[in-house]
Amino acid sequence: MNVALLGFGTVGQAVARLILDSSAPLTLTHICNRHVARKRVDWVPSSVAWTENFDDLLGPDVDLIVEVIGGLDPAGRYHRAAIAAKKSVVTANKQLIAHEGGDLLRLASQQGVHFGFEAAVAGGIPVIRAIREGLAGDSLKRISGILNGTCNYMLTRMEAERISFDAVLADAQAKGFAEADPTDDLDGYDARAKLCVLARIGLHVALRPEDVPCRSIRPLKDVDFLYARRLGYTIRQVSRVEHNADGDGARSVDATVEPALVKNGSVLSRVRGSENLVLTLGELGSETGFFGRGAGGDPTAVAVLSDVLSIARHSSPPGWFGEVADDRPATVESRRIFPHYVRLVVRDKPGIIAALANALARHDLNIDAVLQEGGWPKDALPFVVTLEPARRDLVDRAIDEIAPLDFHVERPVCLPILD
Amino acid sequence: MNVALLGFGTVGQAVARLILDSSAPLTLTHICNRHVARKRVDWVPSSVAWTENFDDLLGPDVDLIVEVIGGLDPAGRYHRAAIAAKKSVVTANKQLIAHEGGDLLRLASQQGVHFGFEAAVAGGIPVIRAIREGLAGDSLKRISGILNGTCNYMLTRMEAERISFDAVLADAQAKGFAEADPTDDLDGYDARAKLCVLARIGLHVALRPEDVPCRSIRPLKDVDFLYARRLGYTIRQVSRVEHNADGDGARSVDATVEPALVKNGSVLSRVRGSENLVLTLGELGSETGFFGRGAGGDPTAVAVLSDVLSIARHSSPPGWFGEVADDRPATVESRRIFPHYVRLVVRDKPGIIAALANALARHDLNIDAVLQEGGWPKDALPFVVTLEPARRDLVDRAIDEIAPLDFHVERPVCLPILD
Repeated sequence: MNVALLGFGTVGQAVARLILDSSAPLTLTHICNRHVARKRVDWVPSSVAWTENFDDLLGPDVDLIVEVIGGLDPAGRYHRAAIAAKKSVVTANKQLIAHEGGDLLRLASQQGVHFGFEAAVAGGIPVIRAIREGLAGDSLKRISGILNGTCNYMLTRMEAERISFDAVLADAQAKGFAEADPTDDLDGYDARAKLCVLARIGLHVALRPEDVPCRSIRPLKDVDFLYARRLGYTIRQVSRVEHNADGDGARSVDATVEPALVKNGSVLSRVRGSENLVLTLGELGSETGFFGRGAGGDPTAVAVLSDVLSIARHSSPPGWFGEVADDRPATVESRRIFPHYVRLVVRDKPGIIAALANALARHDLNIDAVLQEGGWPKDALPFVVTLEPARRDLVDRAIDEIAPLDFHVERPVCLPILD
Repeated sequence: MNVALLGFGTVGQAVARLILDSSAPLTLTHICNRHVARKRVDWVPSSVAWTENFDDLLGPDVDLIVEVIGGLDPAGRYHRAAIAAKKSVVTANKQLIAHEGGDLLRLASQQGVHFGFEAAVAGGIPVIRAIREGLAGDSLKRISGILNGTCNYMLTRMEAERISFDAVLADAQAKGFAEADPTDDLDGYDARAKLCVLARIGLHVALRPEDVPCRSIRPLKDVDFLYARRLGYTIRQVSRVEHNADGDGARSVDATVEPALVKNGSVLSRVRGSENLVLTLGELGSETGFFGRGAGGDPTAVAVLSDVLSIARHSSPPGWFGEVADDRPATVESRRIFPHYVRLVVRDKPGIIAALANALARHDLNIDAVLQEGGWPKDALPFVVTLEPARRDLVDRAIDEIAPLDFHVERPVCLPILD
């Protein structure tokens, strides 16, 4: 099978090496990248054509195009052109699959070509195939997990070393574990794209990524890990999507990407460093989990090559049934109730607890406990209120009312407490 | 696609329900079992033919046969007859795949039929597909894990409750977690069959199950969990297979199924109750893990149905390359070195440590530590010697020499210490 490679960055180079080293009947025909002159390397045999022109990949000598340039545009246009030219496509592009996966999968099916995106979620963990095929016999109710290695690396370092958010971010950037612009990772957009892909293949719903609430890990402080530990928890960026059982069934899901308190010793708490974890909850198989290296050139390239090999093995693409029957975006509604952790930093004075308690009571929220560690300055005193289980939107409304009160040093931080 | 079901026990009944409830284009045509009159149930529609005669399943109206009767014979004959009649086969039969998988896969490939065995290993965890396809792009060096739910249930109860082996076995049998004859589970033969299947698909070697050393969990006592905890460990039945790097490479593996000390907090230690865990170590993706419910009617039926759906989706079976190139059994040799835990029960008298130390020294084995908890009777005193890393066969030779000494109350128990 003749394979053309679109993108020759870290992942693309790793993919090229794997294809060239593979004992499977694969031939690398093209490498397409901007500035080919600067990209050319001597370990690629001279039989491979280097080009800056994507159209060169659409000739009859190419069976499959591996796209590892990322982003929505021009990647989406390239995918459509490839499928129209009856090329199979393998991609690591999570944003493209999250936003346009329904359309691309339909086009690929119409053209009778394969479309692989194992590498788009959780890098080296073969979770797409495991969920899409291996758990196809079950009916999944929930998919959750830790989908962003950068956040997890930072949070586990804050947990272990009690250093500030800014210090750990600077260090992660210096070490290459975080981007110069870390927005996509820290604010949840990277994980959200992966969650939308998992929702499509596992829960059989289309989600518009913009509809899934993301909450940043940026407001977290080292003191949050202290209070979390006192409660028996730690903090992880957790992505979660599940069917809302009532209402319009499969057309409504509860989905978020956010920092959350997870119990010490739980599966989520045990994910360290830049690892990823995906948990599925099925009607019959109950909880199944997948963990491993979520990112990096080599694990992602393994996922790409595994897709390529799978396509090489199958003379025709699989017919799918029981995938997303209705590709209109499902409704995203927060229906699950959780206890919440609310951390405040205040200029201490009498009456603060009373003011909070009154505001919370007006929103029918019950305080479970108030925690205050000693040793903090009176003018920037961090303390924590835990709330009994409630819907997040109601908690947010109460916090919106509390936030303007004059004793705050900064806006309160609210995290769900998962069990 | 027309599906016939061979075997109507717990798993077979769960499979029948899933096929009947599925929205996929599947039709259940036959149910074949002994004593059909006693097996017949009213929730199976009258369109399904009940039969005691396997040959009825070989007619032109059947596309695929699901075999869930287990065992080597007659299951193996039925598989061959099904494949010869150009029926695809899906099975949960680990022993058959472990012993005859190479032959059956070859026959299926020759006949152009599908052959699915996801349910043969780790029930509800889609690890066969994940390894065979999702990690196909990597080169795996080792597969390990906890493959027998009965052993794990018993060991985690002994760990938590400090009750005797016999008491926990009796209770497990009463609750249906252990068979009346628990030999296959306790002595490792069940896990060994699964390990051989994993070695085939992940390490691309054929293993003769009889060649893989199995050590029983029966000699374990509650005191072993006490000593293990003092060392920072607990005990699990661990299955492990890895390529021996030197020597004749892929033709030599180190493989065992045995109780082992695993570090508290490690992935293996955290597998509780009847859960299963499979860990793969790849050249590029490093460690990837899969966990979930390893057995039971529903998880196994999910795996069977997932295979059936995969076959229904694909018009022709995949061609495989890079699978087992040489189907002659690989050599099994213990080459890895581990520290070892040796627990003795002795009638105490002066000179025991000296006698042990002399015997061990003669075999070039170094004692790392001697542990002895107080409060035990002098005439049946359990204590532990830990040994510095050494090959297991050398340790066994030393223990064979030590075992006849007159102070032993029972034969010493030796467990590797995994890190």
